[in-house]
Amino acid sequence: MKNDNFLRALLRQPTDHTPIWIMRQAGRYLPEYNATRKKAGSFLALAKSPELACEVTLQPLERFALDAAILFSDILTIPDAMGLGLYFAEGEGPKFERTVRTEEQVRKLPLASMDELRYVFDAVSLIRKSLDGRVPLIGFSGSPFTLACYMIEGGGSDDFRQVKTMLYARPDLLHAILEKNAQSVTAYLNAQIAAGAQAVMVFDTWGGALSDAAYREFSLAYAKKVFAGVTRTAEGRTVPRIFFTKGGGLWLEAMADCGADALGLDWTVDIGAARQRVGDRMALQGNMDPNALFAPPEAIEREAKRILESFGRGPGHVFNLGHGVSQFTPPDHVGALVEAVHRHSVGASKT
Amino acid sequence: MKNDNFLRALLRQPTDHTPIWIMRQAGRYLPEYNATRKKAGSFLALAKSPELACEVTLQPLERFALDAAILFSDILTIPDAMGLGLYFAEGEGPKFERTVRTEEQVRKLPLASMDELRYVFDAVSLIRKSLDGRVPLIGFSGSPFTLACYMIEGGGSDDFRQVKTMLYARPDLLHAILEKNAQSVTAYLNAQIAAGAQAVMVFDTWGGALSDAAYREFSLAYAKKVFAGVTRTAEGRTVPRIFFTKGGGLWLEAMADCGADALGLDWTVDIGAARQRVGDRMALQGNMDPNALFAPPEAIEREAKRILESFGRGPGHVFNLGHGVSQFTPPDHVGALVEAVHRHSVGASKT
Repeated sequence: MKNDNFLRALLRQPTDHTPIWIMRQAGRYLPEYNATRKKAGSFLALAKSPELACEVTLQPLERFALDAAILFSDILTIPDAMGLGLYFAEGEGPKFERTVRTEEQVRKLPLASMDELRYVFDAVSLIRKSLDGRVPLIGFSGSPFTLACYMIEGGGSDDFRQVKTMLYARPDLLHAILEKNAQSVTAYLNAQIAAGAQAVMVFDTWGGALSDAAYREFSLAYAKKVFAGVTRTAEGRTVPRIFFTKGGGLWLEAMADCGADALGLDWTVDIGAARQRVGDRMALQGNMDPNALFAPPEAIEREAKRILESFGRGPGHVFNLGHGVSQFTPPDHVGALVEAVHRHSVGASKT
Repeated sequence: MKNDNFLRALLRQPTDHTPIWIMRQAGRYLPEYNATRKKAGSFLALAKSPELACEVTLQPLERFALDAAILFSDILTIPDAMGLGLYFAEGEGPKFERTVRTEEQVRKLPLASMDELRYVFDAVSLIRKSLDGRVPLIGFSGSPFTLACYMIEGGGSDDFRQVKTMLYARPDLLHAILEKNAQSVTAYLNAQIAAGAQAVMVFDTWGGALSDAAYREFSLAYAKKVFAGVTRTAEGRTVPRIFFTKGGGLWLEAMADCGADALGLDWTVDIGAARQRVGDRMALQGNMDPNALFAPPEAIEREAKRILESFGRGPGHVFNLGHGVSQFTPPDHVGALVEAVHRHSVGASKT
């Protein structure tokens, strides 16, 4: 591999510079992404075409000196492959034709069919081949809890009313869904690794909506189950795992036992303080406010430097935003960030 | 006063039971509130009528054995009294006719006119009189930063794009707005105390959207300025202050120096852990997930008990939700919560 700084940083090994990639780096802020999406006809058609998914995965690497590629896909492929009928209403987020709320719906919910997800694994193989060792490829999945949120609500939610109702009134039903999700996520990540993913990340986008006690019982416990079942090595190399709970800064100590190698941090946590809390056990990935990218390049550089300095010297830092890049971000501001992170971190992890 | 458990708990003095009130306790989940609102014609007409504001403030006390009343008002009265033109578009949140984004707009922004806010102080006097010593009356304001969010965005926001752009690109402009907001909030709370408010709370609804560094510089620093200027005693009694940053669980140690007597907690923090972190300096208010109120009364009681036990014995706990009660909450579930908190906490603060 030509540039494996990302994989080394996740395993807290020295790197040439602090590696950086950007959540949602293949996305709507890039005109070339929008052109491919238009060609595909819809977001789902884009996500379900291995060729087009490969095309958009590689686009940001042509523009920026990013240290990793991430599979372009949707977070909701698994519930779709459980037969819930994923669709996107124009101008709204993702929706499901069928929800999982009653005892009978929970009982009848199948594990996700890996056959139905072949388009994802085909995309992974194709991207991996196209990357030709340039940078590592990250596979990913939504966390069991985050998938459950969409499955129970039937789409996005401001308040997770249906999820919370089930959690407090019928925790047994939620546990049953989460168990099926955990098994499905494990199989899904393993199939991505078999197809060529060199690191995997679990996105727990909604775990931060829970109380401390509920987070441990309904989100973290099932992330642990997933990591316990995920393949540890492939092609003779460790496959590092990243776990990211948005809004999870309070729970880092608990997360440090989840079986991942690295924790993703949103921007509410001071990364230096996070390192003091868990940095002897985990690498850290993050954590600039995505909306700092609306400011001019000098301000972006200042903020990137602040975060690098807060992490300090020594290995174990993958730079990223604290959440996905906004569609309204000027692409050259992303370029300024990548450049600033590399320039200010040369040799930082060697000491 | 017949029941001053709330005031005593805020000062970490022993109480008969753990006092409870509910953020947004006078609100849309109550049919009698909706009837009064209908009579008023609009939300703003309701908020601007001292008589009707008094009427809805007292409504939840008729139903439930709550230990405090809170002034019914809007969080955005201050920017409105700065001349920004608050209005509510049907089915949307609050909006301002004019925003504050340019250097000139910031320079010309006046302090809030206390004359324009007389309707609020009249409501406080009237409510206080109507309460007749039954329970204490809480006055409140939005925090300087939270008010600035609405003033800069011109309404609610998912991503605070305009605020963050200013924060990273022109921090000097944001500081200038915050300085005016802090002076206005201080005067506003002091006028509420003069009119009869017996405790005051500052709601920092959006501080949790900031990075750790930005929170300290742009939200917490101005909350401190407010508390430094707020009247300490009235009618021969200490006027306790509560500071609440939603999503602020990471920053409790920093908040403990803000000049408030108590910190509000959202439900993501374990209240027992929060007490270990700051409980020798501050009382704590919170922190049940509002959406736990969708579950049946037995589940609500279980969750309330879990929180009381997590706080443990000894004084300094005011029970509340971790955010406002949802409009979809069955009123009798609120009743079940109030009853459960009282029943399970008799004598708990005496030891």
